[in-house]
Amino acid sequence: MHEAVDIARIEAATARLAGKARVTPVLSSPALDALAGRRVLVKAECLQHTGSFKFRGGWAAVSALPEGTRGVLAVSSGNHAQGVALAAQRHTLPAVIVMPSDAPAIKIANTRALGAEIVLYDRATADRDAVASALAEARGLTLIPPFDHPEVIAGQASVGLELAEQTQGAGVVQVLVCCGGGGLTSGIALALKARAPQMQVRPVEPEGFDDVARALTTGHVTPNTLRSGLCDAIVTPAPGRLTWPILRRLCGPGLVVSDADALRAMALAFDHLKLVLEPGGAVALAAALFQPDQITGDTVVVIASGGNVDRAVFQRALNEG
Amino acid sequence: MHEAVDIARIEAATARLAGKARVTPVLSSPALDALAGRRVLVKAECLQHTGSFKFRGGWAAVSALPEGTRGVLAVSSGNHAQGVALAAQRHTLPAVIVMPSDAPAIKIANTRALGAEIVLYDRATADRDAVASALAEARGLTLIPPFDHPEVIAGQASVGLELAEQTQGAGVVQVLVCCGGGGLTSGIALALKARAPQMQVRPVEPEGFDDVARALTTGHVTPNTLRSGLCDAIVTPAPGRLTWPILRRLCGPGLVVSDADALRAMALAFDHLKLVLEPGGAVALAAALFQPDQITGDTVVVIASGGNVDRAVFQRALNEG
Repeated sequence: MHEAVDIARIEAATARLAGKARVTPVLSSPALDALAGRRVLVKAECLQHTGSFKFRGGWAAVSALPEGTRGVLAVSSGNHAQGVALAAQRHTLPAVIVMPSDAPAIKIANTRALGAEIVLYDRATADRDAVASALAEARGLTLIPPFDHPEVIAGQASVGLELAEQTQGAGVVQVLVCCGGGGLTSGIALALKARAPQMQVRPVEPEGFDDVARALTTGHVTPNTLRSGLCDAIVTPAPGRLTWPILRRLCGPGLVVSDADALRAMALAFDHLKLVLEPGGAVALAAALFQPDQITGDTVVVIASGGNVDRAVFQRALNEG
Repeated sequence: MHEAVDIARIEAATARLAGKARVTPVLSSPALDALAGRRVLVKAECLQHTGSFKFRGGWAAVSALPEGTRGVLAVSSGNHAQGVALAAQRHTLPAVIVMPSDAPAIKIANTRALGAEIVLYDRATADRDAVASALAEARGLTLIPPFDHPEVIAGQASVGLELAEQTQGAGVVQVLVCCGGGGLTSGIALALKARAPQMQVRPVEPEGFDDVARALTTGHVTPNTLRSGLCDAIVTPAPGRLTWPILRRLCGPGLVVSDADALRAMALAFDHLKLVLEPGGAVALAAALFQPDQITGDTVVVIASGGNVDRAVFQRALNEG
């Protein structure tokens, strides 16, 4: 089934993204290199529109919709919500975002500021997917899933095509990717398989949410039991029906990072890269900095996938990190 | 005398910087545009090597030195120190940096980490310039001044050449530049005069350090009486012998920003751009956001000139901003 996302689809999505998504810079710092014991190249997707790579997948999906589409719907209180909202707004297409009623006010406000209509549901009494399905049907909206969707994966894969070009000749053999449902990780893996097959993708997850790492070891998926954590952007229970076969086929062993190390990586990105990373966007950097023995090559790439972090959490990183 | 810095010198410096300095991205955010009431394009020099534009001037000056130069010397505890140190290190040239003995330990450590030798002097008993001159003579080192030097100005001017290219067709008529001694401001003004003369440069300074704004109004320079402040990167007493005539000839009226507004701009850059700015690197953004009536045009460019900020000061911005 994952063959639905081939390099032609990735190239087509990347072409639609040209001039719409930012080509994010690849940054580095002598201090981080010294800490990691190798050169660390940081692909700064936190500088993408809406503060995370999710805009790419949102744009790829929205821009692939047929004429006459009445609007889009997404279920997310986080980065996917903002990515879809901005992509829809720039297509002058209505966007409805379904969020739990206890979502942080700032996330509701940020998504609404991008022109989306927010529909809240009560986590205790309502089923999220039922709410979304009913809404989609009643209003004729098209659901944009957060990762398990060919166009979303193809959009995230544009990070991989950029990377292959930006790091040509740098001798990179491993690419560490912050991994939740696996849309970004599988997309980059597909792009690199086609354009830079010497570069191996390794998923990086937070402790307690290492479903992909476990599945890559055992060969079968067992969902996480924890439901929420510091790295909220990437605490999905399990990889998807589309993403898992790609991850299994293409990715190297997973890496697993503690919350404390994610906070330390955030503080070091602040000090040395002048970047704001969210915890879930910092785990790949954390693995490069604090688990150097697990990694191969003189130069490693890490994806800094997002920077949407509450001020309080960032303060904690600066205090503890 | 300022004719020493002409467009040929700027182009030559920019050519030497190619592949050495980062071409920093121009970022923006719908939320900041809404606050400012116009489109705000942020040239993110905080993402430059060493965390500020100073690397450009450092590289331009060091790369222009004749064969047989024995080493360089700079007097700075801040961004200029790091810019010169890294430029010298990459030219495998010794660098000696003169700092007051009460400079923050982190600044000493950061500069030393770039391979420089740090020489401390006692602010109470020693004259900084005398210490530097004696050292330069004794060791045969070439002094690299922080702003009043043709190659330093030409290096900073590369920001202007990049900007002219990056914002082509965007309808920009004003460019706000964080201004200390005026090296960056005068350099950008010279570059834009040659490449995009419709774009006017306006210096932005912190309250209490508005020597350039005052001089542009009165036509003559009177130094600031205050010596230190929150915006430590740009609290120089007065513009230079080279920079002032350029500023007077080419720049529009100065803008003056309170410390509180600099902190607010830092917090908003954190929220919406995922950038770490230092107070002195945030004053241009602050002017765009909080003094919209002082500015002309549907789109304004601000230079975010640096991001080297202590964690404690950044915490203050997140708390108060």
